[in-house]
Amino acid sequence: MKDKEILDEKGLARRKILVGTGALAAGATLSQFSGLLKPAAATGGKTEKWPWPYKKLDPAETAEIAYNEWYRVFCGAAVINSVFSQLREKVGEPYVSFPSDAFVFLEGGQVGWGTICGSPAGANIVANLIIGPRIAGADAGHFIAADIMQWYSEAKLPTYTPRKPRLTSEIPTTTSDSPLCHISVGKWMKAADKALKSPERKDRCARVAASTAYRLVELLNQWHAGDYESTGDFSCAAEFGITGQFNCMDCHGADVPEPPVMKKS
Amino acid sequence: MKDKEILDEKGLARRKILVGTGALAAGATLSQFSGLLKPAAATGGKTEKWPWPYKKLDPAETAEIAYNEWYRVFCGAAVINSVFSQLREKVGEPYVSFPSDAFVFLEGGQVGWGTICGSPAGANIVANLIIGPRIAGADAGHFIAADIMQWYSEAKLPTYTPRKPRLTSEIPTTTSDSPLCHISVGKWMKAADKALKSPERKDRCARVAASTAYRLVELLNQWHAGDYESTGDFSCAAEFGITGQFNCMDCHGADVPEPPVMKKS
Repeated sequence: MKDKEILDEKGLARRKILVGTGALAAGATLSQFSGLLKPAAATGGKTEKWPWPYKKLDPAETAEIAYNEWYRVFCGAAVINSVFSQLREKVGEPYVSFPSDAFVFLEGGQVGWGTICGSPAGANIVANLIIGPRIAGADAGHFIAADIMQWYSEAKLPTYTPRKPRLTSEIPTTTSDSPLCHISVGKWMKAADKALKSPERKDRCARVAASTAYRLVELLNQWHAGDYESTGDFSCAAEFGITGQFNCMDCHGADVPEPPVMKKS
Repeated sequence: MKDKEILDEKGLARRKILVGTGALAAGATLSQFSGLLKPAAATGGKTEKWPWPYKKLDPAETAEIAYNEWYRVFCGAAVINSVFSQLREKVGEPYVSFPSDAFVFLEGGQVGWGTICGSPAGANIVANLIIGPRIAGADAGHFIAADIMQWYSEAKLPTYTPRKPRLTSEIPTTTSDSPLCHISVGKWMKAADKALKSPERKDRCARVAASTAYRLVELLNQWHAGDYESTGDFSCAAEFGITGQFNCMDCHGADVPEPPVMKKS
Protein backbone atom coordinates (compact mmCIF):
# COMPACT_ATOMS: atom_id res chain seq x y z
CA MET A 1 0.00 0.00 0.00
CA LYS A 2 1.57 3.23 -1.14
CA ASP A 3 -1.49 5.43 -0.72
CA LYS A 4 -1.27 5.95 3.01
CA GLU A 5 -2.89 8.94 4.57
CA ILE A 6 -0.72 10.99 6.86
CA LEU A 7 -2.81 9.61 9.69
CA ASP A 8 -0.86 6.43 9.24
CA GLU A 9 2.54 7.99 9.01
CA LYS A 10 5.13 7.80 11.68
CA GLY A 11 6.04 11.36 10.74
CA LEU A 12 2.96 12.70 12.47
CA ALA A 13 4.25 11.60 15.84
CA ARG A 14 7.67 13.15 15.50
CA ARG A 15 8.33 15.48 18.36
CA LYS A 16 10.58 17.86 16.52
CA ILE A 17 10.55 18.75 12.88
CA LEU A 18 12.46 21.59 11.35
CA VAL A 19 10.77 23.17 8.39
CA GLY A 20 11.82 26.31 6.60
CA THR A 21 9.54 28.81 4.88
CA GLY A 22 7.75 26.81 2.25
CA ALA A 23 10.54 24.28 2.31
CA LEU A 24 9.97 20.66 1.48
CA ALA A 25 12.20 19.38 4.23
CA ALA A 26 9.81 16.55 5.02
CA GLY A 27 8.53 16.32 1.48
CA ALA A 28 10.32 13.07 0.91
CA THR A 29 8.01 11.32 3.32
CA LEU A 30 5.03 12.67 1.43
CA SER A 31 6.30 11.82 -2.03
CA GLN A 32 4.44 8.53 -1.90
CA PHE A 33 1.32 10.55 -2.55
CA SER A 34 2.50 11.57 -5.97
CA GLY A 35 1.23 8.29 -7.34
CA LEU A 36 -2.24 9.39 -6.33
CA LEU A 37 -2.11 12.77 -7.99
CA LYS A 38 -4.29 12.98 -11.03
CA PRO A 39 -5.27 15.97 -13.10
CA ALA A 40 -8.22 17.65 -11.43
CA ALA A 41 -10.25 20.60 -12.53
CA ALA A 42 -9.92 22.10 -9.10
CA THR A 43 -6.16 22.39 -9.00
CA GLY A 44 -4.06 25.22 -10.30
CA GLY A 45 -6.37 28.00 -9.15
CA LYS A 46 -4.92 31.49 -9.00
CA THR A 47 -4.42 31.36 -5.24
CA GLU A 48 -3.28 27.73 -5.11
CA LYS A 49 0.40 28.60 -5.19
CA TRP A 50 2.10 28.24 -1.85
CA PRO A 51 3.33 29.63 0.42
CA TRP A 52 1.31 32.83 0.35
CA PRO A 53 3.45 35.90 1.09
CA TYR A 54 3.68 36.51 4.82
CA LYS A 55 5.00 39.34 7.00
CA LYS A 56 5.89 38.94 10.65
CA LEU A 57 2.99 39.99 12.87
CA ASP A 58 2.81 41.08 16.48
CA PRO A 59 1.09 38.36 18.57
CA ALA A 60 -0.43 40.77 21.09
CA GLU A 61 -1.72 43.12 18.40
CA THR A 62 -3.25 40.13 16.61
CA ALA A 63 -4.85 38.95 19.84
CA GLU A 64 -6.40 42.37 20.38
CA ILE A 65 -7.96 42.29 16.91
CA ALA A 66 -9.29 38.76 17.51
CA TYR A 67 -10.81 39.78 20.84
CA ASN A 68 -12.71 42.69 19.34
CA GLU A 69 -13.65 40.82 16.17
CA TRP A 70 -15.26 38.07 18.27
CA TYR A 71 -18.06 40.50 19.11
CA ARG A 72 -18.71 40.97 15.38
CA VAL A 73 -18.03 37.57 13.77
CA PHE A 74 -17.46 35.14 16.67
CA CYS A 75 -14.57 32.75 17.28
CA GLY A 76 -13.58 31.19 13.96
CA ALA A 77 -13.86 34.24 11.73
CA ALA A 78 -12.33 36.39 14.49
CA VAL A 79 -9.13 34.32 14.43
CA ILE A 80 -9.03 34.34 10.62
CA ASN A 81 -9.66 38.08 10.45
CA SER A 82 -7.12 38.86 13.16
CA VAL A 83 -4.36 37.63 10.85
CA PHE A 84 -5.82 38.34 7.42
CA SER A 85 -6.96 41.92 8.12
CA GLN A 86 -3.31 42.76 8.87
CA LEU A 87 -1.97 40.87 5.86
CA ARG A 88 -4.52 42.57 3.61
CA GLU A 89 -2.83 45.82 4.57
CA LYS A 90 0.78 44.65 4.71
CA VAL A 91 0.69 42.29 1.70
CA GLY A 92 -2.54 42.71 -0.30
CA GLU A 93 -3.43 39.70 -2.46
CA PRO A 94 -4.34 36.90 -2.08
CA TYR A 95 -5.65 38.00 1.32
CA VAL A 96 -7.89 40.69 -0.16
CA SER A 97 -9.68 38.02 -2.19
CA PHE A 98 -10.24 35.62 0.68
CA PRO A 99 -13.81 35.77 2.06
CA SER A 100 -12.97 35.63 5.77
CA ASP A 101 -16.37 36.78 6.97
CA ALA A 102 -18.02 33.69 5.44
CA PHE A 103 -16.57 31.69 8.34
CA VAL A 104 -18.95 33.03 10.99
CA PHE A 105 -20.57 29.58 10.86
CA LEU A 106 -17.60 28.13 12.78
CA GLU A 107 -19.24 29.59 15.93
CA GLY A 108 -20.29 27.23 18.68
CA GLY A 109 -18.35 24.32 17.20
CA GLN A 110 -19.98 24.78 13.76
CA VAL A 111 -23.44 26.41 13.93
CA GLY A 112 -23.79 25.45 17.60
CA TRP A 113 -23.13 21.73 17.20
CA GLY A 114 -20.28 21.80 19.69
CA THR A 115 -17.69 20.07 17.49
CA ILE A 116 -14.27 21.68 17.04
CA CYS A 117 -14.04 25.07 18.76
CA GLY A 118 -14.04 27.81 16.14
CA SER A 119 -10.77 29.25 17.43
CA PRO A 120 -8.56 26.27 16.50
CA ALA A 121 -10.73 25.66 13.41
CA GLY A 122 -9.98 29.21 12.28
CA ALA A 123 -6.30 28.92 13.17
CA ASN A 124 -6.00 25.70 11.18
CA ILE A 125 -7.52 27.42 8.16
CA VAL A 126 -5.09 30.35 8.43
CA ALA A 127 -2.01 28.14 8.77
CA ASN A 128 -2.98 25.93 5.84
CA LEU A 129 -4.00 28.79 3.57
CA ILE A 130 -0.67 30.54 4.13
CA ILE A 131 1.62 27.51 4.09
CA GLY A 132 -0.39 25.24 1.80
CA PRO A 133 -1.56 21.63 1.98
CA ARG A 134 0.69 18.63 2.46
CA ILE A 135 -0.30 17.30 -0.97
CA ALA A 136 1.53 20.32 -2.40
CA GLY A 137 4.65 19.27 -0.55
CA ALA A 138 4.46 21.67 2.40
CA ASP A 139 3.73 20.01 5.69
CA ALA A 140 4.28 22.81 8.20
CA GLY A 141 0.62 23.86 7.90
CA HIS A 142 -0.44 20.37 8.88
CA PHE A 143 1.94 20.33 11.83
CA ILE A 144 1.02 23.82 13.01
CA ALA A 145 -2.64 22.71 13.01
CA ALA A 146 -1.72 19.68 15.12
CA ASP A 147 0.30 21.94 17.44
CA ILE A 148 -2.65 24.29 17.84
CA MET A 149 -5.02 21.40 18.65
CA GLN A 150 -2.70 20.07 21.34
CA TRP A 151 -1.83 23.50 22.73
CA TYR A 152 -5.54 24.37 22.93
CA SER A 153 -6.28 21.11 24.74
CA GLU A 154 -3.50 21.50 27.31
CA ALA A 155 -3.55 25.26 28.00
CA LYS A 156 -5.35 26.95 30.86
CA LEU A 157 -7.66 28.99 28.67
CA PRO A 158 -7.93 31.87 28.18
CA THR A 159 -4.20 32.59 28.29
CA TYR A 160 -4.52 36.15 26.96
CA THR A 161 -6.06 39.09 28.81
CA PRO A 162 -7.08 41.95 26.53
CA ARG A 163 -5.81 45.46 27.21
CA LYS A 164 -9.33 46.81 27.55
CA PRO A 165 -11.59 43.88 28.42
CA ARG A 166 -15.33 44.47 28.13
CA LEU A 167 -15.73 42.74 31.47
CA THR A 168 -13.25 43.68 34.14
CA SER A 169 -14.23 40.97 36.62
CA GLU A 170 -11.85 38.02 36.98
CA ILE A 171 -12.86 34.89 35.12
CA PRO A 172 -11.55 31.39 35.77
CA THR A 173 -9.22 29.57 33.42
CA THR A 174 -9.83 25.92 32.57
CA THR A 175 -8.05 23.11 30.76
CA SER A 176 -10.30 21.34 28.27
CA ASP A 177 -8.15 18.29 27.40
CA SER A 178 -9.98 18.55 24.07
CA PRO A 179 -10.34 20.90 21.10
CA LEU A 180 -14.13 20.41 21.11
CA CYS A 181 -16.32 23.45 21.80
CA HIS A 182 -18.80 21.44 23.89
CA ILE A 183 -16.10 20.14 26.24
CA SER A 184 -14.07 23.36 26.35
CA VAL A 185 -16.99 25.67 27.03
CA GLY A 186 -18.72 23.09 29.24
CA LYS A 187 -15.76 22.72 31.59
CA TRP A 188 -15.39 26.49 31.78
CA MET A 189 -19.13 27.02 32.43
CA LYS A 190 -18.97 24.48 35.25
CA ALA A 191 -15.92 26.13 36.82
CA ALA A 192 -17.36 29.62 36.45
CA ASP A 193 -20.96 28.63 37.21
CA LYS A 194 -22.04 30.81 34.32
CA ALA A 195 -24.62 30.10 31.62
CA LEU A 196 -23.95 29.94 27.89
CA LYS A 197 -25.86 33.20 27.45
CA SER A 198 -23.95 35.05 30.16
CA PRO A 199 -21.70 38.02 29.32
CA GLU A 200 -18.90 36.26 31.19
CA ARG A 201 -19.09 33.19 28.93
CA LYS A 202 -19.07 35.38 25.84
CA ASP A 203 -16.06 37.34 27.03
CA ARG A 204 -14.31 34.08 27.92
CA CYS A 205 -14.79 32.85 24.36
CA ALA A 206 -13.59 36.19 22.93
CA ARG A 207 -10.46 35.82 25.08
CA VAL A 208 -9.99 32.22 23.89
CA ALA A 209 -10.08 33.49 20.31
CA ALA A 210 -7.49 36.12 21.28
CA SER A 211 -5.33 33.51 23.01
CA THR A 212 -5.46 31.21 19.98
CA ALA A 213 -4.62 34.03 17.57
CA TYR A 214 -1.63 34.92 19.78
CA ARG A 215 -0.32 31.33 19.73
CA LEU A 216 -0.97 30.98 15.99
CA VAL A 217 1.07 34.07 15.15
CA GLU A 218 3.93 32.89 17.35
CA LEU A 219 4.05 29.69 15.28
CA LEU A 220 3.65 31.48 11.93
CA ASN A 221 6.44 33.88 12.82
CA GLN A 222 8.69 30.93 13.69
CA TRP A 223 7.84 29.28 10.37
CA HIS A 224 8.47 32.52 8.50
CA ALA A 225 11.84 32.91 10.21
CA GLY A 226 12.76 29.35 9.22
CA ASP A 227 12.98 28.03 12.76
CA TYR A 228 9.60 26.41 13.25
CA GLU A 229 9.66 23.30 15.39
CA SER A 230 6.53 21.27 15.89
CA THR A 231 5.58 21.06 19.54
CA GLY A 232 2.97 18.34 19.13
CA ASP A 233 3.83 14.83 20.22
CA PHE A 234 0.49 13.10 19.81
CA SER A 235 -1.08 11.08 17.00
CA CYS A 236 -4.13 9.06 17.98
CA ALA A 237 -4.04 7.22 14.63
CA ALA A 238 -0.42 6.18 15.07
CA GLU A 239 -0.78 5.28 18.74
CA PHE A 240 -4.30 3.88 18.89
CA GLY A 241 -5.32 3.06 15.31
CA ILE A 242 -8.17 5.56 15.06
CA THR A 243 -8.50 9.31 14.59
CA GLY A 244 -9.13 11.00 17.92
CA GLN A 245 -8.02 13.03 20.88
CA PHE A 246 -6.01 11.90 23.91
CA ASN A 247 -8.84 12.11 26.45
CA CYS A 248 -10.28 8.65 25.70
CA MET A 249 -11.63 8.09 29.20
CA ASP A 250 -13.49 11.41 29.28
CA CYS A 251 -16.13 9.72 27.14
CA HIS A 252 -15.36 5.99 27.34
CA GLY A 253 -14.66 5.71 31.06
CA ALA A 254 -12.59 2.63 31.84
CA ASP A 255 -13.97 0.73 28.84
CA VAL A 256 -11.91 2.16 26.00
CA PRO A 257 -12.60 -0.06 23.00
CA GLU A 258 -9.80 -1.54 20.89
CA PRO A 259 -10.15 -0.57 17.24
CA PRO A 260 -9.89 -3.36 14.66
CA VAL A 261 -6.35 -3.92 13.40
CA MET A 262 -5.11 -4.93 9.97
CA LYS A 263 -5.45 -8.65 9.36
CA LYS A 264 -2.34 -10.53 8.39
CA SER A 265 -2.81 -12.01 4.94
CA MET B 1 -28.99 41.99 26.08
CA LYS B 2 -29.25 42.65 22.38
CA ASP B 3 -26.01 40.93 21.40
CA LYS B 4 -27.28 37.39 21.41
CA GLU B 5 -25.53 34.77 19.36
CA ILE B 6 -27.72 32.69 17.11
CA LEU B 7 -27.03 29.85 19.53
CA ASP B 8 -29.49 31.55 21.80
CA GLU B 9 -32.12 32.21 19.22
CA LYS B 10 -35.37 30.38 18.97
CA GLY B 11 -34.99 30.63 15.23
CA LEU B 12 -32.39 27.91 15.20
CA ALA B 13 -34.92 25.35 16.36
CA ARG B 14 -37.56 26.16 13.75
CA ARG B 15 -38.42 23.06 11.81
CA LYS B 16 -39.30 24.82 8.59
CA ILE B 17 -37.92 28.02 7.22
CA LEU B 18 -38.45 29.28 3.73
CA VAL B 19 -35.57 31.26 2.34
CA GLY B 20 -35.15 32.45 -1.21
CA THR B 21 -31.90 32.90 -3.11
CA GLY B 22 -29.95 35.37 -1.05
CA ALA B 23 -33.18 36.58 0.44
CA LEU B 24 -33.34 38.07 3.88
CA ALA B 25 -36.57 36.35 4.82
CA ALA B 26 -35.36 35.69 8.32
CA GLY B 27 -33.09 38.71 8.38
CA ALA B 28 -35.39 40.52 10.75
CA THR B 29 -34.50 38.12 13.51
CA LEU B 30 -30.83 38.82 12.85
CA SER B 31 -31.11 42.59 12.67
CA GLN B 32 -30.34 42.79 16.35
CA PHE B 33 -26.77 42.10 15.38
CA SER B 34 -26.48 45.38 13.54
CA GLY B 35 -25.80 47.11 16.83
CA LEU B 36 -22.66 45.01 17.08
CA LEU B 37 -21.35 45.79 13.66
CA LYS B 38 -18.35 48.05 13.73
CA PRO B 39 -16.01 49.02 10.95
CA ALA B 40 -13.45 46.27 10.56
CA ALA B 41 -10.47 46.10 8.30
CA ALA B 42 -11.44 42.62 7.26
CA THR B 43 -14.85 43.41 5.80
CA GLY B 44 -15.60 44.52 2.30
CA GLY B 45 -13.14 42.23 0.59
CA LYS B 46 -13.61 41.63 -3.11
CA THR B 47 -15.30 38.27 -2.60
CA GLU B 48 -17.31 39.30 0.46
CA LYS B 49 -20.41 40.12 -1.53
CA TRP B 50 -23.11 37.51 -1.21
CA PRO B 51 -24.59 35.36 -2.58
CA TRP B 52 -21.91 34.15 -4.95
CA PRO B 53 -23.31 33.29 -8.40
CA TYR B 54 -24.54 29.70 -8.48
CA LYS B 55 -25.69 27.33 -11.23
CA LYS B 56 -27.77 24.24 -10.58
CA LEU B 57 -25.54 21.17 -10.30
CA ASP B 58 -26.24 17.47 -10.73
CA PRO B 59 -26.02 15.73 -7.33
CA ALA B 60 -24.80 12.40 -8.73
CA GLU B 61 -22.18 14.05 -10.93
CA THR B 62 -20.99 16.02 -7.90
CA ALA B 63 -20.85 12.87 -5.81
CA GLU B 64 -18.71 11.15 -8.46
CA ILE B 65 -16.21 14.02 -8.39
CA ALA B 66 -16.10 13.95 -4.60
CA TYR B 67 -15.51 10.20 -4.57
CA ASN B 68 -12.54 10.43 -6.91
CA GLU B 69 -11.17 13.60 -5.35
CA TRP B 70 -11.07 11.86 -1.94
CA TYR B 71 -8.16 9.79 -3.21
CA ARG B 72 -6.27 13.00 -4.01
CA VAL B 73 -7.25 15.49 -1.28
CA PHE B 74 -9.32 13.50 1.26
CA CYS B 75 -12.75 14.23 2.68
CA GLY B 76 -13.02 17.96 3.32
CA ALA B 77 -11.27 19.27 0.24
CA ALA B 78 -12.99 16.57 -1.86
CA VAL B 79 -16.42 17.94 -0.93
CA ILE B 80 -15.31 21.52 -1.55
CA ASN B 81 -13.73 20.66 -4.90
CA SER B 82 -16.70 18.57 -6.01
CA VAL B 83 -18.80 21.73 -6.07
CA PHE B 84 -16.21 24.40 -6.80
CA SER B 85 -14.47 22.61 -9.68
CA GLN B 86 -17.80 22.64 -11.51
CA LEU B 87 -18.57 26.25 -10.62
CA ARG B 88 -15.11 27.31 -11.75
CA GLU B 89 -16.10 26.07 -15.19
CA LYS B 90 -19.74 27.15 -15.22
CA VAL B 91 -19.34 30.49 -13.41
CA GLY B 92 -15.65 31.44 -13.09
CA GLU B 93 -14.92 33.94 -10.32
CA PRO B 94 -14.95 34.02 -7.35
CA TYR B 95 -14.53 30.24 -7.45
CA VAL B 96 -11.33 30.41 -9.49
CA SER B 97 -9.72 32.48 -6.72
CA PHE B 98 -10.75 30.21 -3.87
CA PRO B 99 -7.89 27.97 -2.68
CA SER B 100 -9.86 24.74 -2.25
CA ASP B 101 -6.83 22.47 -2.07
CA ALA B 102 -5.64 24.21 1.11
CA PHE B 103 -8.38 22.34 2.96
CA VAL B 104 -6.70 18.93 2.85
CA PHE B 105 -6.07 19.44 6.59
CA LEU B 106 -9.76 18.76 7.30
CA GLU B 107 -8.88 15.04 6.91
CA GLY B 108 -9.40 12.76 9.86
CA GLY B 109 -11.44 15.32 11.77
CA GLN B 110 -8.75 18.02 11.33
CA VAL B 111 -5.23 16.57 10.91
CA GLY B 112 -6.31 13.29 12.47
CA TRP B 113 -7.74 14.71 15.70
CA GLY B 114 -11.13 13.09 15.11
CA THR B 115 -13.23 16.23 15.58
CA ILE B 116 -15.80 17.16 12.93
CA CYS B 117 -15.68 14.79 9.94
CA GLY B 118 -14.15 16.61 6.98
CA SER B 119 -17.17 15.90 4.78
CA PRO B 120 -19.67 18.04 6.74
CA ALA B 121 -16.85 20.52 7.54
CA GLY B 122 -16.28 20.94 3.80
CA ALA B 123 -20.00 21.12 3.05
CA ASN B 124 -20.47 23.82 5.68
CA ILE B 125 -17.69 25.86 4.08
CA VAL B 126 -19.24 25.53 0.61
CA ALA B 127 -22.73 26.53 1.76
CA ASN B 128 -21.50 29.54 3.69
CA LEU B 129 -19.12 30.74 0.99
CA ILE B 130 -21.88 30.66 -1.60
CA ILE B 131 -24.74 32.00 0.49
CA GLY B 132 -22.77 34.16 2.91
CA PRO B 133 -22.68 34.55 6.69
CA ARG B 134 -25.66 35.37 8.87
CA ILE B 135 -24.02 38.66 9.90
CA ALA B 136 -24.46 39.74 6.27
CA GLY B 137 -28.18 39.06 6.55
CA ALA B 138 -28.31 35.68 4.81
CA ASP B 139 -29.11 32.80 7.11
CA ALA B 140 -29.68 29.92 4.68
CA GLY B 141 -25.98 29.01 4.80
CA HIS B 142 -26.21 28.67 8.56
CA PHE B 143 -29.32 26.51 8.29
CA ILE B 144 -27.94 24.33 5.49
CA ALA B 145 -24.89 23.67 7.69
CA ALA B 146 -27.17 22.64 10.55
CA ASP B 147 -29.16 20.45 8.14
CA ILE B 148 -25.99 18.77 6.94
CA MET B 149 -24.83 18.08 10.51
CA GLN B 150 -28.14 16.47 11.43
CA TRP B 151 -28.49 14.57 8.14
CA TYR B 152 -24.94 13.24 8.54
CA SER B 153 -25.67 12.13 12.09
CA GLU B 154 -28.92 10.34 11.23
CA ALA B 155 -28.12 8.79 7.82
CA LYS B 156 -26.96 5.26 7.25
CA LEU B 157 -23.63 6.23 5.72
CA PRO B 158 -22.49 5.94 3.05
CA THR B 159 -25.75 6.62 1.20
CA TYR B 160 -24.11 6.95 -2.23
CA THR B 161 -22.53 4.13 -4.23
CA PRO B 162 -20.14 5.33 -6.92
CA ARG B 163 -20.61 4.18 -10.50
CA LYS B 164 -17.15 2.65 -10.62
CA PRO B 165 -16.12 1.94 -7.04
CA ARG B 166 -12.47 1.10 -6.45
CA LEU B 167 -13.60 -1.72 -4.20
CA THR B 168 -16.47 -3.81 -5.46
CA SER B 169 -17.06 -5.75 -2.24
CA GLU B 170 -20.10 -4.78 -0.18
CA ILE B 171 -19.40 -2.55 2.80
CA PRO B 172 -21.70 -2.01 5.77
CA THR B 173 -23.55 1.24 6.39
CA THR B 174 -23.68 2.73 9.88
CA THR B 175 -25.44 5.55 11.69
CA SER B 176 -23.06 7.74 13.68
CA ASP B 177 -25.53 9.83 15.73
CA SER B 178 -22.74 12.40 15.57
CA PRO B 179 -20.86 14.55 13.04
CA LEU B 180 -17.53 13.67 14.69
CA CYS B 181 -14.97 11.73 12.64
CA HIS B 182 -13.89 9.62 15.60
CA ILE B 183 -17.42 8.42 16.33
CA SER B 184 -18.49 8.08 12.69
CA VAL B 185 -15.44 6.15 11.55
CA GLY B 186 -15.23 4.24 14.84
CA LYS B 187 -18.77 2.90 14.60
CA TRP B 188 -18.18 1.92 10.99
CA MET B 189 -14.84 0.22 11.76
CA LYS B 190 -16.53 -1.78 14.51
CA ALA B 191 -19.40 -2.85 12.24
CA ALA B 192 -17.06 -3.71 9.37
CA ASP B 193 -14.26 -5.11 11.55
CA LYS B 194 -11.81 -3.18 9.40
CA ALA B 195 -8.78 -1.15 10.48
CA LEU B 196 -8.26 2.55 9.86
CA LYS B 197 -5.54 1.71 7.35
CA SER B 198 -7.67 -0.78 5.42
CA PRO B 199 -8.68 -0.12 1.80
CA GLU B 200 -12.30 -0.74 2.84
CA ARG B 201 -12.19 2.05 5.45
CA LYS B 202 -10.67 4.43 2.92
CA ASP B 203 -13.30 3.63 0.31
CA ARG B 204 -16.01 4.02 2.94
CA CYS B 205 -14.76 7.53 3.71
CA ALA B 206 -14.54 8.38 0.00
CA ARG B 207 -18.18 7.27 -0.32
CA VAL B 208 -19.16 9.33 2.73
CA ALA B 209 -17.61 12.38 1.02
CA ALA B 210 -19.61 11.52 -2.12
CA SER B 211 -22.80 11.07 -0.08
CA THR B 212 -22.33 14.41 1.65
CA ALA B 213 -21.61 16.21 -1.62
CA TYR B 214 -24.81 14.71 -3.07
CA ARG B 215 -26.90 15.94 -0.13
CA LEU B 216 -25.22 19.36 -0.14
CA VAL B 217 -26.02 19.94 -3.81
CA GLU B 218 -29.64 18.89 -3.28
CA LEU B 219 -29.92 21.61 -0.63
CA LEU B 220 -28.04 24.23 -2.68
CA ASN B 221 -30.25 23.54 -5.69
CA GLN B 222 -33.34 24.00 -3.50
CA TRP B 223 -31.96 27.28 -2.18
CA HIS B 224 -31.11 28.44 -5.70
CA ALA B 225 -34.63 27.60 -6.87
CA GLY B 226 -36.07 29.61 -3.98
CA ASP B 227 -37.73 26.66 -2.27
CA TYR B 228 -35.20 25.71 0.39
CA GLU B 229 -36.74 24.45 3.59
CA SER B 230 -34.55 23.67 6.56
CA THR B 231 -34.90 20.05 7.61
CA GLY B 232 -33.06 20.42 10.92
CA ASP B 233 -35.11 20.45 14.11
CA PHE B 234 -32.37 20.40 16.72
CA SER B 235 -30.58 23.09 18.70
CA CYS B 236 -28.60 21.88 21.69
CA ALA B 237 -28.11 25.46 22.88
CA ALA B 238 -31.83 26.22 22.79
CA GLU B 239 -32.88 22.91 24.29
CA PHE B 240 -30.08 22.18 26.74
CA GLY B 241 -28.22 25.47 27.30
CA ILE B 242 -24.91 24.39 25.81
CA THR B 243 -23.47 23.86 22.35
CA GLY B 244 -23.52 20.18 21.44
CA GLN B 245 -24.93 17.21 19.64
CA PHE B 246 -28.00 15.15 20.52
CA ASN B 247 -26.18 12.01 21.58
CA CYS B 248 -25.52 13.16 25.17
CA MET B 249 -25.56 9.64 26.65
CA ASP B 250 -23.01 8.31 24.15
CA CYS B 251 -20.36 10.05 26.26
CA HIS B 252 -22.10 10.94 29.52
CA GLY B 253 -23.99 7.70 30.12
CA ALA B 254 -26.92 8.24 32.47
CA ASP B 255 -25.20 11.15 34.24
CA VAL B 256 -25.81 13.98 31.82
CA PRO B 257 -24.80 17.16 33.68
CA GLU B 258 -27.07 20.18 33.86
CA PRO B 259 -25.35 23.29 32.51
CA PRO B 260 -25.49 26.43 34.66
CA VAL B 261 -28.47 28.67 33.90
CA MET B 262 -28.77 32.43 33.94
CA LYS B 263 -29.21 33.78 37.44
CA LYS B 264 -32.26 35.91 38.11
CA SER B 265 -31.15 39.37 39.16
